[in-house]
Amino acid sequence: MSAQPGDALSGNEIDLQQIAALVDTGDPAAIAAAVAPLHPADLAELLNILPRPESRKTVFGLLPATVAATVVTRLSPAALTEILESRSDDELQGLVEELDSDDAADLLESVSKERAQAVLQGLPGSVAARIQQLLKYPPDTAGGLMKSEYAAVLQGATVEEAVEIVRTLAEAVADIHNVLVVDHRFHLLGVLSLSRLILARAGETVDAVMDRQVISVTVDTDQEEVARLFRKYDLVSLPVTDPRGALLGRITVDDIVEVLEEEANEDFSKLSGLGQEEPLFDSPGRAIKRRLPWLGLNLFTTSLSASVIGLFEGTIHSRALAAALMTIVAAQGGNAGVQTLTVMVRGMAMGKVGLAQARGILFKELAVACGNGIALGIAAGVVTYLLHGEPLLATVLGIALVVNFLIAALVGSLIPLILRWLRADPAIASSVFVTACTDMCGFFSFLGLLSIGLRYV
Amino acid sequence: MSAQPGDALSGNEIDLQQIAALVDTGDPAAIAAAVAPLHPADLAELLNILPRPESRKTVFGLLPATVAATVVTRLSPAALTEILESRSDDELQGLVEELDSDDAADLLESVSKERAQAVLQGLPGSVAARIQQLLKYPPDTAGGLMKSEYAAVLQGATVEEAVEIVRTLAEAVADIHNVLVVDHRFHLLGVLSLSRLILARAGETVDAVMDRQVISVTVDTDQEEVARLFRKYDLVSLPVTDPRGALLGRITVDDIVEVLEEEANEDFSKLSGLGQEEPLFDSPGRAIKRRLPWLGLNLFTTSLSASVIGLFEGTIHSRALAAALMTIVAAQGGNAGVQTLTVMVRGMAMGKVGLAQARGILFKELAVACGNGIALGIAAGVVTYLLHGEPLLATVLGIALVVNFLIAALVGSLIPLILRWLRADPAIASSVFVTACTDMCGFFSFLGLLSIGLRYV
Repeated sequence: MSAQPGDALSGNEIDLQQIAALVDTGDPAAIAAAVAPLHPADLAELLNILPRPESRKTVFGLLPATVAATVVTRLSPAALTEILESRSDDELQGLVEELDSDDAADLLESVSKERAQAVLQGLPGSVAARIQQLLKYPPDTAGGLMKSEYAAVLQGATVEEAVEIVRTLAEAVADIHNVLVVDHRFHLLGVLSLSRLILARAGETVDAVMDRQVISVTVDTDQEEVARLFRKYDLVSLPVTDPRGALLGRITVDDIVEVLEEEANEDFSKLSGLGQEEPLFDSPGRAIKRRLPWLGLNLFTTSLSASVIGLFEGTIHSRALAAALMTIVAAQGGNAGVQTLTVMVRGMAMGKVGLAQARGILFKELAVACGNGIALGIAAGVVTYLLHGEPLLATVLGIALVVNFLIAALVGSLIPLILRWLRADPAIASSVFVTACTDMCGFFSFLGLLSIGLRYV
Repeated sequence: MSAQPGDALSGNEIDLQQIAALVDTGDPAAIAAAVAPLHPADLAELLNILPRPESRKTVFGLLPATVAATVVTRLSPAALTEILESRSDDELQGLVEELDSDDAADLLESVSKERAQAVLQGLPGSVAARIQQLLKYPPDTAGGLMKSEYAAVLQGATVEEAVEIVRTLAEAVADIHNVLVVDHRFHLLGVLSLSRLILARAGETVDAVMDRQVISVTVDTDQEEVARLFRKYDLVSLPVTDPRGALLGRITVDDIVEVLEEEANEDFSKLSGLGQEEPLFDSPGRAIKRRLPWLGLNLFTTSLSASVIGLFEGTIHSRALAAALMTIVAAQGGNAGVQTLTVMVRGMAMGKVGLAQARGILFKELAVACGNGIALGIAAGVVTYLLHGEPLLATVLGIALVVNFLIAALVGSLIPLILRWLRADPAIASSVFVTACTDMCGFFSFLGLLSIGLRYV
């Protein structure tokens, strides 16, 4: 590929829609010329947005093997399935051979078991064994994220030997950031960044120049914990060991960037009652299946809240306006509760809330609830009095709002804390549960206070 | 610091609480021994959790200058302010001199303008000018994230010259990942990763071995776009240029990991009506100030919904049960709407939804709403009939649920799309707006259908 100086700056401003239109015209020479200078990430995006399967196959067929392999790791699930189905087992094996072990394992996970087996049998024994090993780790653990390719030397090696290892590996592996130093049992002793390797004098041993503070994880570490370590220690690469401390592989920061997105999306989805993350372009059938259980649960909880209203039928008969005002109390509590819940769940996800901090947070939330409740309670009471001239309804509305704000603070902070204490994920304390409580308490406090008030007025 | 082989594996399992207790005993030798082997990130966490200002100062005073500088970049705002106030201007200047330009600028932003000025005047002119330049960029742009330290060579340089540049820089700058190749106007021509530099043969020019596909951004690029490029192209380091394309600095992936967290938290906070991100341990006063406007808005919108109920006072008088059932319709719509909203807003944040996809998404959401609405409408209708034996109320409840699910799908997907079209942030379409619509339509459809039904029964 040839590039002009100007290209350097326009790398991120390619008009893929225009290229997609060109692909649809079907002129092979023009397509090849337009596609050749693209970055693999842009090629993947192009393949994802191409509307016709035929054009997708045409473009993919034009790519050199190494580029095709990188592109494959970035396709949307739908485009990936389509392209893999159009390739022979031999071609699939060619792709797997070009990939790092972690991407190879991910690729084989997206074809049928039989096909994966056939491809693995065609690979050299050591490569197949390595991929098969990776396939065994759960995808949301350090083992599921790591690749088996890394640069390592034995303690006592010279700096030249370490440079030689990097030279040998760098031909095949793109993202070597450092050299790991191990003992004869493969236990980690230290790490040498490439820039420190370049700094070192010829003839020195790696032991003399390595950094002995190595952060590492074991294969079974949860991906959320792995991401926390990357964030805390500003890592680019993290070694992974077996439970006994022997080196198995490494995780690179690009995979962690994806994990961070994934974890944030997971929290989001749980909080808003989606249960698990929903792909934007999922089929309606799958989306219904995912959302219906939460909505069903919500139907049950709102029916419970509504049954509270049934207790006060007489009150509503005598003051139909009460039916309107009670919904304000419930909705305000729900909103305040979700605010508290959001602060809590995100704080927990970032590792900032332990049980030790619980009391302080609870006091803060109750103080906030008092402040907001009194301000809005007075506002709502005054406006109701001015509009409807009913002092009893206005007073009851104001008091019920304060009560429900306090309930919202309690529920919004305690539910996630209790779930954490039960070792469950705090994010499943979705707004469904919080609003169920605030609805119920909102109706009860407003209608209860009103029915007491009506008895004495 | 001396380390035993075992240390390598326990880097992430230090009991900071135990060290904090030791610090409180006040034994200087024991404290120094416990603190010496800690990673700067752990030292910062220790300082953050120490309860007494005195012990914080003791521990910080023990740190060597380079370590102290790294620690300072990771302190909580409260601990940072406290420590900076206890340091003289000379000591502050010492810290600034140890830091990369981006961290130095951040540090100076957390002291008073006068103090920052005093420190800048004590620095060598070129260093001060560089930091002052960085202070001018808004913090959420590429300029605000970048550092001015990078390795660059002119085109035509040899590989040895590039290695020499890295050697010179690596003494002072920790995270050199690559060498940038520029022309005489400082325009970017290519990039050489350190591993490719190690691979290259002696005597080759950098032009022969560099990668010409350089992704870069201009100083004014928004941090969300910067993060998207890191994710898309799996970057560790991204060059930043002025609007004319001349190299100014680079952004490293560790800063992007923070941006991703920040952006996710921002979306979360907006969606749940917090407006902007709220620190977990914020003061109640500030928390009230932040949340009150949203709750006030919500009070207004729920009052509008409640006024819809006022239109049907007669209906509620004749069937008090209606007051209970209408809240179920409203709550169900609210939940379904927030589900749709979450999928949309996250999809947009990840750059997956453009206006081109809008029609497809809307159809999908309407299909999902039909499915869920019919399933839950039948369930709710049947149960209501069995419990209360009122066929009219049961039928109206079922139909109103389907109607409100459809409204929820429309509102949950259209509000963010319209905001995007207006070039506003889709996440401000917080659940406040969506639930206002679903409440109003829920009450209206249920009570409206019921009052029509009552006329004919």
